[in-house]
Amino acid sequence: MTIDPQIVKSLQAIVGRKHVLTSQEDLLCYSFDGTFAEFMPDLVVEPRSTEEVSAILQLAYAHEIPVIARGMGSGLAAGTVPFGGGIVVPLTRMNQILEIDRENMTATVEAGVITVDLQNAVEEHGLFYPPDPASIKHSTIGGNIACNAGGPRCLKYGVTGNYVMGVTVVLADGRVFSSGGKTIKNVTGYSFSELFTGSEGTLGIITEAVLRLISKPRFVRTAVAAFDRLGDASRAVNSILFTGIVPATLELMDETAIVCIEEAMHLGLPLDKEAILIIESDGFDEEGVKHEIKAIARICRDSGASDVQVARDEAGRDKLWRARRSVSPSLARRAPNKLGEDISVPRSQIPEAVRRIKEISQRYGLPIVVFGHAGDGNLHPNILFDKRDPEQWEKVQRIVGEIFATAVELGGTLSGEHGVGTLKLPYLESDVGRVSIEIQQAIKQALDPKGILNPGKALPLMEPSAHF
Amino acid sequence: MTIDPQIVKSLQAIVGRKHVLTSQEDLLCYSFDGTFAEFMPDLVVEPRSTEEVSAILQLAYAHEIPVIARGMGSGLAAGTVPFGGGIVVPLTRMNQILEIDRENMTATVEAGVITVDLQNAVEEHGLFYPPDPASIKHSTIGGNIACNAGGPRCLKYGVTGNYVMGVTVVLADGRVFSSGGKTIKNVTGYSFSELFTGSEGTLGIITEAVLRLISKPRFVRTAVAAFDRLGDASRAVNSILFTGIVPATLELMDETAIVCIEEAMHLGLPLDKEAILIIESDGFDEEGVKHEIKAIARICRDSGASDVQVARDEAGRDKLWRARRSVSPSLARRAPNKLGEDISVPRSQIPEAVRRIKEISQRYGLPIVVFGHAGDGNLHPNILFDKRDPEQWEKVQRIVGEIFATAVELGGTLSGEHGVGTLKLPYLESDVGRVSIEIQQAIKQALDPKGILNPGKALPLMEPSAHF
Repeated sequence: MTIDPQIVKSLQAIVGRKHVLTSQEDLLCYSFDGTFAEFMPDLVVEPRSTEEVSAILQLAYAHEIPVIARGMGSGLAAGTVPFGGGIVVPLTRMNQILEIDRENMTATVEAGVITVDLQNAVEEHGLFYPPDPASIKHSTIGGNIACNAGGPRCLKYGVTGNYVMGVTVVLADGRVFSSGGKTIKNVTGYSFSELFTGSEGTLGIITEAVLRLISKPRFVRTAVAAFDRLGDASRAVNSILFTGIVPATLELMDETAIVCIEEAMHLGLPLDKEAILIIESDGFDEEGVKHEIKAIARICRDSGASDVQVARDEAGRDKLWRARRSVSPSLARRAPNKLGEDISVPRSQIPEAVRRIKEISQRYGLPIVVFGHAGDGNLHPNILFDKRDPEQWEKVQRIVGEIFATAVELGGTLSGEHGVGTLKLPYLESDVGRVSIEIQQAIKQALDPKGILNPGKALPLMEPSAHF
Repeated sequence: MTIDPQIVKSLQAIVGRKHVLTSQEDLLCYSFDGTFAEFMPDLVVEPRSTEEVSAILQLAYAHEIPVIARGMGSGLAAGTVPFGGGIVVPLTRMNQILEIDRENMTATVEAGVITVDLQNAVEEHGLFYPPDPASIKHSTIGGNIACNAGGPRCLKYGVTGNYVMGVTVVLADGRVFSSGGKTIKNVTGYSFSELFTGSEGTLGIITEAVLRLISKPRFVRTAVAAFDRLGDASRAVNSILFTGIVPATLELMDETAIVCIEEAMHLGLPLDKEAILIIESDGFDEEGVKHEIKAIARICRDSGASDVQVARDEAGRDKLWRARRSVSPSLARRAPNKLGEDISVPRSQIPEAVRRIKEISQRYGLPIVVFGHAGDGNLHPNILFDKRDPEQWEKVQRIVGEIFATAVELGGTLSGEHGVGTLKLPYLESDVGRVSIEIQQAIKQALDPKGILNPGKALPLMEPSAHF
């Protein structure tokens, strides 16, 4: 689509001439996210305030131009790729931490604040913002909320949505409203903070949020346990949680992941084990944390771990986390490309899910590495392949379909933390069912009757005839 | 309204003749809740399954008859009083715990299960369902979810909504769908479990839920701290939470509450203190729990508590909880009637909220007792009065309005855990604003275009012309 020069002028009047990007070089930067998908936007408009977002949307709504809100574009489901063109609206200029309220333990932030910047800022006050998506160093709070981002620490501390106490949202037609705030308990009106969280920019644009903070844990201990059998690792996970211990993180890496890391990092990881768990305990009482990590180590041994080590110091802990964090990059040594998925299954189904994924891998002859957040059943199967080979790329598509089918068959879901975006749309109905999609569409239609907000993402477009 | 005898026959065919109640005596039982409001339903229909609920709604939808879903009717906002008549649908026959899954730590339940029955059942498996509304012994899980019920333990463990992993819902037109399930992390599709939680029966009827369980804490210690000044009690609350300690409960009672309890129970409470805090610490490590309650006691003393005692044994603990639980009944000694409200304010505003409420009380010459969940800013001001005196009843209405205005002015909200129902509707816009109400109405209209589900509750009816 081409955007009328008069509209471009009006947008320039709203945000200033230099914040309306039109050159192909500039537009290119907003044509992709963390996936293989890409599509050129017609225009990029960078607002500095909720009022500017509102003015942009009033204009776009009047002219029925698609608007794709975006943080840093680190998404893994092609949720911000502007298929069909339109105006991309990065919230990155809205990057102010407006307030850190020590007494109420809240932070009020603009959507474009980088998550790690928020974390560092609140930690200076002895406070803690727990959600830690892998993209933490470059993704924004607004993007995290729009996708309800997770991360390793979410086992103990909950996902992004558990920290959203209030949101300011601009609706499709430019109306602005706030929901929630600094009250911890609030049952007045529908749960809008929760509805907009995870709605992937399809119901409104989140411009500000009030976030819950907690006190920063003062002590942390990390253990690594190696298992000959993956099933034993899974049993250990359940046994730990059943005793009432909730580790800060409980991360699983399968044997292919271990081998890849070891090849890349030479950390001395065992190469003949089906699984490694990295488990971290944190808290406010040094003795309590030590006591907990010892109990965890014992449970791992009792569940069949062949080797359990507790990091003695920060250097040892750092080594373990370097291992965990290097999983994804280390896979690059194995194949030119990887495609990381994000299924979530009931915790008890982890062994069966991994078994089936390995079977799929063998059948197609492409390696699939499995790692993820074992404590909450959220697994990241990564398919290794060479995108230049059309046959492999075609296989990858079919593998993805089979992985999703496996998740759903096991009572799980397509996405634990990445979202549906564009890429998971074809599989959505198999997971949530027809009626759920109808309700999503009804709500989308109610809040965005012209369908201008991030069209074709998160839920299927309605039949054109169904729009009024 | 009168319901056509043919429709009554069809309803009898769905649920069985004896489960369609028509006598005035039977209907009377479903004409009120925990408030002073009442209105006779036209019919009560008691389903035994999701399918029966669906069949009832298909019929009601076709004939545009209001349907008011209901648990045990213990609500405190007239949310289930069938103003305007229609069919009351109690979910109380759907009272089966369908599964307790020890491995995934979940319970799958029908909506009519009494909350305490679920708690007892899961505790037999070493598991724990934390939400503990005061009505726990007679309210249902379905009602708890529909109102997103709270309770003292929610400070540490979160409200009902934090335990809802999945719901099965029957929509206004009888369509059935499920959202969520046993996966801990799930970002596939909009957050429907969250949207239906707290929607007070206006968007659909929740018939089943998958609930998250945790391990049952093994040790508990309880302390009571008396403060000469309420401001000091409030400071103690903030200091405790800021150290990273999250007590299981942190309950506040003001001086009037203390005096009422003491008059009724003779527990030896001090009568000259502005506030008492009852604080409970729980966990899995006996030493850790002891250590924590000692730290709490120290912080209370440092914050100005004139007396702090830690219960030595279960008998001592029981005495403290008898005191807390007897607040509400003990008020009956002071006045024939009481009206309990449920405001929530940012924690830092508790002293100011209490000060203003006391000022309102003095100005109107009616006692207002304040107690509640200080840790999360959720206060229950209880107005004492004699309903037979029309002048007092009129004052009570005005006092309620002033209390709500105070909550909103202080950045708080009308309801922390009771819901909006009918009684708070006149104040809703002052809290959430016009746009929020418009969005609520748009979503209501999208899911229940004929407006048959619990009409006139939780959000204002749309102008008739706005319905299609």
